[in-house]
Amino acid sequence: MRPVSIVGIGQIPVKKAYYRSLREIAAQVVRLAMEDAGVDRVDALFAGNMLSDELQGQKQLAALIADEAGLYGIEALAVRAATASGAAALRMAYLAVASGEADLAIAVGVEKMSEGVATPALAKALDARYEVAAGATLLSKNAELMRLYRQRYNVPEDAFVNFAVNAHANARHNPNALFRQRVTARTVRRSRVVMEPLRLMDCSPICDGAAAVVLAPRDEARAYTKQPVHILASSVATDRFRVSDRKDPLMLEAARLSAFKAFRLANVNREDISLYEVHDAFSIMACLLLEAVGFAEPGQGWRLAAEKEIGLRGRIPVATMGGLKARGHPIGATALYQTCEIVLQLTGRAGKNQVKDAKIGLLQSVGGAATTLLTHIFGV
Amino acid sequence: MRPVSIVGIGQIPVKKAYYRSLREIAAQVVRLAMEDAGVDRVDALFAGNMLSDELQGQKQLAALIADEAGLYGIEALAVRAATASGAAALRMAYLAVASGEADLAIAVGVEKMSEGVATPALAKALDARYEVAAGATLLSKNAELMRLYRQRYNVPEDAFVNFAVNAHANARHNPNALFRQRVTARTVRRSRVVMEPLRLMDCSPICDGAAAVVLAPRDEARAYTKQPVHILASSVATDRFRVSDRKDPLMLEAARLSAFKAFRLANVNREDISLYEVHDAFSIMACLLLEAVGFAEPGQGWRLAAEKEIGLRGRIPVATMGGLKARGHPIGATALYQTCEIVLQLTGRAGKNQVKDAKIGLLQSVGGAATTLLTHIFGV
Repeated sequence: MRPVSIVGIGQIPVKKAYYRSLREIAAQVVRLAMEDAGVDRVDALFAGNMLSDELQGQKQLAALIADEAGLYGIEALAVRAATASGAAALRMAYLAVASGEADLAIAVGVEKMSEGVATPALAKALDARYEVAAGATLLSKNAELMRLYRQRYNVPEDAFVNFAVNAHANARHNPNALFRQRVTARTVRRSRVVMEPLRLMDCSPICDGAAAVVLAPRDEARAYTKQPVHILASSVATDRFRVSDRKDPLMLEAARLSAFKAFRLANVNREDISLYEVHDAFSIMACLLLEAVGFAEPGQGWRLAAEKEIGLRGRIPVATMGGLKARGHPIGATALYQTCEIVLQLTGRAGKNQVKDAKIGLLQSVGGAATTLLTHIFGV
Repeated sequence: MRPVSIVGIGQIPVKKAYYRSLREIAAQVVRLAMEDAGVDRVDALFAGNMLSDELQGQKQLAALIADEAGLYGIEALAVRAATASGAAALRMAYLAVASGEADLAIAVGVEKMSEGVATPALAKALDARYEVAAGATLLSKNAELMRLYRQRYNVPEDAFVNFAVNAHANARHNPNALFRQRVTARTVRRSRVVMEPLRLMDCSPICDGAAAVVLAPRDEARAYTKQPVHILASSVATDRFRVSDRKDPLMLEAARLSAFKAFRLANVNREDISLYEVHDAFSIMACLLLEAVGFAEPGQGWRLAAEKEIGLRGRIPVATMGGLKARGHPIGATALYQTCEIVLQLTGRAGKNQVKDAKIGLLQSVGGAATTLLTHIFGV
């Protein structure tokens, strides 16, 4: 297997609603990423998207994006893992280059949630027969986990508040973030309850966005960019599909498995991680992921937020450019936004959000109720 | 890149409607393929499916199948290329093993078209904005191509009849085929017109099915089976998305590109091909594919059928176990059925359908209106 590097990135601001179509914003970031890499052709394109079947009535999306971007003839396939679909596209592009089947591959993520009603389509990430039929949504599943967490660990009322405060503080200087206004603990605390105990400010927003990265073999990376970022590991694991079948719903087994496999593949320790782009679709999910990866003991993840250890100067900076909460969570695009952000951090281009001496970045992407977990580790 | 072989296959009869659920029939073929390979664990599972979002209300299908098959914890991702989704899953499993990321991977295809109305969901393979909005379906696109072909080449009324006759003749001895009764040229000729000039017997049926194959590195293949079949090439190409944007709609550019790339990768010539599992979703598509790959000159593909050169003893046997027309075309499962059938042919286990001295098998899978094309070449 040959090592793989990122040699170009492309992203556009996350918005509540783009007037331009799904295919247009996807093709735009494809071109931006290719421009950044200084190439006008790639061998393969892998697309991550979750909702275009329902919201745009569109399948075969990868071929459509390739056509719209003028990349006639190339390989183009779509990859799916529900809310982790962007990371799945990154992994497939990685496999294409690592195997030698492609010398240049692009992973593009796109979602346009502003067209139609996203919630029922999102819920299809859960078990249609046993969960959705009983009324479950991704929101209700996360509310369930948060209730269980509160009960088991008896945490203070404000335990999760700082996840949103941190994300919004970091989004302020990210030109691609959806929410750039300051948010205080008081705002979070007073936001309305969406589903007990989840407040609005515990939840990432419905939005539109697209992002892309270009991958090349590591030993050719400097032909395309002065600052390549290397993919040190890519791994996937799954958990029991239904939360109710898990031994301990608060221990995210797939997150633990894929993280530990990635640490082994990358030959790094948890202590080596400079920043962690966590899947903070809901604050409880960020908390549970910090525990699954081992940054905190079970029941202690919220303390990292409360004690500001997740800040840019903290022990383990998370959501360094705003996270899913404040940069926004256009589902299929999210992991590619996070990859772009990690590239900016590791190459010293994160501006006011720069994590000092950032060397190794960790990315985790969650499909459904932490059912499919993808972990990527990046380094320079 | 390390060479990859098929070390186990699993398939179940194609039916109009399975009482059992999508997840159950998928898990069944996963277990059958693993049994055939003599393994009780794989590293990764790649699922091909096109319609579960609409027909079963289910996303994150790969993780669901892994769970249902008892493969807790493994990597599981779904891959999409509309009607070629099964071949996309095969390619991803191939990349996972070729790259060294997985030592054993399973590609599973499944479709259950009997639940709900498949046609509008199938049409999403076309351009939602410019084709579907104007009333196009996969049926109408193929009727359009057939009209154009008839006009340009002024072929006899019966030009396409023998595609169906050949497929049905071959299905008779395939226990997994949907249609096993004999079909005469007269039956085909007299079948009702579905959309001028397409007759019912020009079209593959709506049905349910599932099939799977296990892949391993070639140099370990004999640890799992006495008769490994090697994947000599895997390639993908795309065409302009809309048929109306193509220079010549009757020259399937993506089929030509991916076939020629595959011939190069496998280091074989067209003349070396022992049998060709063609994507005969519509007889016109089979005809155009034979021309794109070069088995016939433009305008002459139908002659191969008319002159019975596509029969088991013909110059280029196609649809040797019944093809999409008569074995059936449960979309996401189709390419995996075809792979299983090629494995049976190349290992001398095709019974009454055995192609003599079969050494090299060609498989092509068509996404949408020949927009995404996957070519796989297999050898022993």
